[in-house]
This record gives sequence, C-alpha cells and structure tokens, in this order.
Amino acid sequence: MGVPLGIFNRLSFSSMSLKPLVDVHTHVYLPRYASWLRSRSVAPKIMSIEGGEERLLILENEPSGGRPVGPQYWDRQEKLRFMNLHGIDISFVSTANPWLDFLSAKDAHELALGLNNDLEEYCSTGPSYSDSVLKRLYGLGLLPLVPGITIDAIVEAVNQIAAAPHLKGLIMGTKGIGKGLDDEALDPVWQAIEAAGLVVFLHPHYGVDSNAWGDKDNGHVLPLALGFPFETTTATARLILSGVFDRFPSLRILLAHSGGALPQLSSRLASCIDHDPVVASRLKHDARFYLGKLYFDAVAYGPEELGFVSEVVSRSKRFEAGSTVQGEADRREGSHRMLFGTDHPFFPPLTSTEKWKSVVENLEAIASVPGWGTSEKDGVRGGNALSLFGLQI
Amino acid sequence: MGVPLGIFNRLSFSSMSLKPLVDVHTHVYLPRYASWLRSRSVAPKIMSIEGGEERLLILENEPSGGRPVGPQYWDRQEKLRFMNLHGIDISFVSTANPWLDFLSAKDAHELALGLNNDLEEYCSTGPSYSDSVLKRLYGLGLLPLVPGITIDAIVEAVNQIAAAPHLKGLIMGTKGIGKGLDDEALDPVWQAIEAAGLVVFLHPHYGVDSNAWGDKDNGHVLPLALGFPFETTTATARLILSGVFDRFPSLRILLAHSGGALPQLSSRLASCIDHDPVVASRLKHDARFYLGKLYFDAVAYGPEELGFVSEVVSRSKRFEAGSTVQGEADRREGSHRMLFGTDHPFFPPLTSTEKWKSVVENLEAIASVPGWGTSEKDGVRGGNALSLFGLQI
Repeated sequence: MGVPLGIFNRLSFSSMSLKPLVDVHTHVYLPRYASWLRSRSVAPKIMSIEGGEERLLILENEPSGGRPVGPQYWDRQEKLRFMNLHGIDISFVSTANPWLDFLSAKDAHELALGLNNDLEEYCSTGPSYSDSVLKRLYGLGLLPLVPGITIDAIVEAVNQIAAAPHLKGLIMGTKGIGKGLDDEALDPVWQAIEAAGLVVFLHPHYGVDSNAWGDKDNGHVLPLALGFPFETTTATARLILSGVFDRFPSLRILLAHSGGALPQLSSRLASCIDHDPVVASRLKHDARFYLGKLYFDAVAYGPEELGFVSEVVSRSKRFEAGSTVQGEADRREGSHRMLFGTDHPFFPPLTSTEKWKSVVENLEAIASVPGWGTSEKDGVRGGNALSLFGLQI
Repeated sequence: MGVPLGIFNRLSFSSMSLKPLVDVHTHVYLPRYASWLRSRSVAPKIMSIEGGEERLLILENEPSGGRPVGPQYWDRQEKLRFMNLHGIDISFVSTANPWLDFLSAKDAHELALGLNNDLEEYCSTGPSYSDSVLKRLYGLGLLPLVPGITIDAIVEAVNQIAAAPHLKGLIMGTKGIGKGLDDEALDPVWQAIEAAGLVVFLHPHYGVDSNAWGDKDNGHVLPLALGFPFETTTATARLILSGVFDRFPSLRILLAHSGGALPQLSSRLASCIDHDPVVASRLKHDARFYLGKLYFDAVAYGPEELGFVSEVVSRSKRFEAGSTVQGEADRREGSHRMLFGTDHPFFPPLTSTEKWKSVVENLEAIASVPGWGTSEKDGVRGGNALSLFGLQI
C-alpha cells in the first residue's frame, strides 16, 4: 500500500553512482557470535529444529517460539546480495541486539575484542566501492558494557575500535554497566568516544515491561513497534537529563528508528523539565536544544514522520540558551542529521528474491518528504552518512 | 523561552467573542471525590500537613512527597477564575486521574453515579456563555471501570451520562475492567457509548513500569513527560489491534496529550503489523487509517508537534483499504480533529496571578503551526470542540 511500482526503478542506484545509497542500520551476527548463541540453553540462543533449520530466540517467552535465522545473519555474501538487490552501495554493519549484555564481564571483554577484530576483517577483506578508495562495508564495533566490567576494559575497546581502519563507531544498548546510560561512572567512556571521534549508534533491545502489552496475542507487534522506540526515547531523555550532552558537547549519537518517540515528546519533555526548577537548573539549555545535537536514522516508514523529525532538528537552535532565533523551522536543514537505514536482516519479505517491503517503504518515504529537495534527499540517502563517518568518495 | 510577550494580548479573547476559546482538557476533583481521597491511608490520598495545607499523593512513592492541592482542584470559582485569566470561554471539565480505579466494584458504581450527578449540577448551575443558550461549563462523566463490576452497571452509567444535559462525554483510563481496553467484554460498553453519541476522552495514569526511569532523581519529569504518553499510545494501539474501530466505526475517542507517541510511531506500527500476516488479517485497514478516526487534544507544547499530528490525521485516507488517494497530506484537513486543552490544574505557575506558561505555550503553538490558516487555528482553539460535542452558538 502506498508503494507505486515505479519506485523500484526510480530508486535503484548502481554501485557506480556518484550519489551513493548508504545503509547505517544493518545488522550481523558474526560467526563467533552465532557460535556463542548456539552454545546457550537460555535466551538469547540459537536452537536447531527439525530439518536442519535454526531458530533465534532473542528473549525468553517470545511469541511464536523464535524467528528463522540463517546465513543472512552471518554470511557476508548474503549481506552483499541484499545490498545489490536494493542498490545499496555502502553499509555500516553492526552486531544485532542483545550484543554482549547477557555475558559475564570476563566473557564480554574477550568477546568484544574478538568481535571487533572479526568485524574489521569482515569489512577490510570485502569488496571496494566502485573505483574509489572506499570499501562497500564498514563496521560499528562493540563495547563490553556489562555489570562488573572495569571502565578501563571498556575504554580499551573504544581505543581498539578507534585504531581499526574500517570501524567508524560503535553500537550500544541502553543498559550501560547495569544502571543505564545516565550513570556518571560512564563519563570516562563518553570522553574516550568523543576524543576518538567515534559515532555511537544507540539501539534498543528490552522495550518496556511486557505487562503493558496485555493478554491478547499480537505477535511481536507491540514490543517491536512501541517497546523498542519507548526504550530509545527513555534512554535518550535520561542522557539529556544527566547532562551528558553538556559535558561532552562533541559526542555524536545516532538514534535507531528515527529517535523513537523523542521528537514528538520533546516539547512535553521540555515543559515538564521547566516545571521542575531543580531539574531545569541542572541543564544548560531547553531540552529541545539537545535534539539538534543528535543524528537520526531514517527508519520510520513514512514521509510525514521523517519530515517532522527534520523539523525538530531544525528548530533546536531556537532553544539554545540565549538564542534570539525565531520563526518557522526549515526542515531542509534538519535533514542533514538523518540517514537511511534498512534494519536488515530483520523484517524480511515472504520470498527470498523480492525487494524488501520495509526497505522500499523507507526509500519511498525519503523520496516523498514534503519540503525536502533533491539535495536533501540525496543527503539522507547517503551523503549525510559519508559526512558523519568522515568518508570521501 | 519562545513565548514573545505579545502573545498575551494577541490570544486574549473576551467571553463575548464569536470565536470562543474552548478547553477540552481540564480537570476537577469534585468535593465528593476529594472527601473520599481524604479518608484514605494509601495512595491515591489527600494528606493534611502542617499549617493546614494539603498534599495530593497520586501514586505511592511519588517523588517529593506529593503535590500541593487546594481549591483550584474542587472550587468552581477557581476554575472560572483560571478561565477568565486566559480568555477561555467554555470548558469541558473531567475528573482527574486516577478516577475510580482504586475502588471496589460497589464503591465505584455508587461514586460514579454520585459524581456524574454532581458534575451535571456543577455545569448546569454555572454561568452562561455570553448571551447564548450555552453554558461556560460542560462535563465529561465517569464510568465505574474496575475489576468485578458488571457490564450492566457500566452501561447504566453510560445511560446516566447520556441523559444529563450538560455531560457530553466521559473520561476513561486505560485499564478497562482489569485487562485493558482491548478486552472484548467491553464491547457492550463501546456499543452503548457509540449509540449515545458520547465522546470518550482517553487519559493516562499509570505510565509504564518505573524501572524504566532509573535511579537518578529527575522529579516527576520522566513518568509525566514519557510514561503518560507511552501509556496512551499503547492503549490506543491495542484498541486498533483489537478491531474496536472496525466494530464500532462511529465511536469518537479523543486522545490526551495529542495522542502521545502514536502519530510518530504509526507507520512503524503499520509496518510491524504488515510483517505479521496473522495480525494483519484481523484488521480491515492499514493501522494508519484508524488515526483519522481519532481526535487529539492540542496539548503538545510545540507548533511542529501539532502540525505533524494534523498531517498524520490528513494522510489517514490514503490508508483506507482500497483507497486510491495519493500525494501530500493537507495538514489543514487534519486540524479539524484537534482541540485546545490546558491540563488545568496541573502544571501551575510559581505565582497565582500570572498566566500559566503551559497554557500560553499551547496557545502560542496553535498560533504558530506552519500550514494552518486562521480558520484552522480558530477551529483548534474552539470551533472543533463545539462541533465534536454538538454545541452551537
């Protein structure tokens, strides 16, 4: 619905294109990680079922007994085949949730270092992009963010990622080392990430307490459609409230799923802060200012959503302390902080040869945002990602 | 910030205005209800503190030991004084959360009937609006929605409200009779509400599990700014998934706080449903269609938020099954389902004589929505409410 057939041709770029299509939200379970999941008896785990197939159980008591899992999760050729099918030139690949969250400090530390090496190799030995110096695959590494870990071990992984030529950032969940991302014990980690110029891709896993979803069988719909964005929204609001963006003003955080509900709730957040002088006095700026310091993937499935997020970014300068900026927000400006993503290999289609509806919808959404011109759309499709990650064609 | 002084004059309507300012989101604890809260030893309760002042504790373990509560919660003169201060001509008054949720079935039944009578009297004996046949106060009644109640007792309250000349709808939380609003046991209630032409004002109280907010002291900010909208979003998504809007297509539901996060997550919701054929097959339309059947208060504190909500309403017709509508959504059309509200007596200012910042911000937001003309803004300020509630000047 809402996807005219013509879009398949119109949006298909060859890998020779000078305006590349770049995917910043695409996941992998590298073989080392998949082996670990196969060795487990509780979620997260990969189980063998009859006929040699495997099922992935991310959370215990997941509806439908887990989802099919196969080479699209770990095989680089499958990632490239998916990219070619959709005209994606370059991908920034990250481990899918739940990352290392379920491991002991010792195992998480060891696996983070091993997986970062694996991911660097996955990218560096992969194909080049056209005849440029660029590769088609770059990576976002992992930190051993688990309870009981030392801050030194986390910073060691930050430095490892910073030294790996094809890792341009890292993916992070919302738990930190057990108390969330507003834990000031993480300040040295933010400092190291900021100093290294790495991008943090903030991604949900836990949602909210499942009592919220009620008794009805709605499959994965509510935890995925609502729980995931609620988690990202909460984590980012807590980061804002903790002053992290005041203390580390050059920190670059990319929010999954277009920031969840944060853009729509940001004026309410600002109003609630404003009515609590103790909280308000801790922050340098109105809460809406900080949304202009964030980056948002364009995984929201609709043009109205994307246009709105870009407006919220644009208006942020009105909310810098002492600002005299007034008037309507120019949504073209905010688009520069938005970046195409697919969420591959999740949301697959029913047959293996067709284009993925989720991908087509997100491309169609970018193409249809009112108020964005060709230049803004090209930026969201790829140019903004290259700028953010410091790559030049 | 962002509120030029001129707005105070520009938005000040006298009660003689032909384009009235109408508040659809304004609360009261009627004396009968306040007495009940005073008699309780656990939350919700009203406690006396030193100096004869009282504190309201809505939830146990609330930060700061409860909020100041006084005549602005129960005294009609205080409500009118607030309305006059802000140029509000007509208010649709509803009991504030947690309504009757904490009561036994017997007490809830008795108190609902008593409070509906009280509210009818509160409105009918109040002042008239200008020299018209209208009053300045109308009410939204209560249903005894608690576990163990009979459906007959709930329908009795629906019929009581329908028969009261100054009650135009009812306010409802999200718990239903214990299993949420997607409980099919409630179908006779929806049927009675639909048949009576009453408006349902859906309002949050519980938020989500407080573990989400972490250990830091952020006052009420996170549960109010995020938890409330998350709850409304979840309840409405569950209503959509349960098919209530397919079974009761004339049901009119007004969402508090501009629908929370539902507009921004609606395309993601539609995509997640689309990838679960079992769930998708239960619904007549794409999830985004149903947003066009809803009404949204304009309590979102920012013009970008309001404009976006109106776009999401406008686009809904593209998502009716079989629709051939294409092209950009005209946000003016969607504005007709949006209605000014204040959330009085919550979010008060620091001194009792100044205009309320929360109110001024919401009026300023309506005045500043890009793409809305004077007629749309007048509608959101009052005309839409009069149409929805069937009142003519």
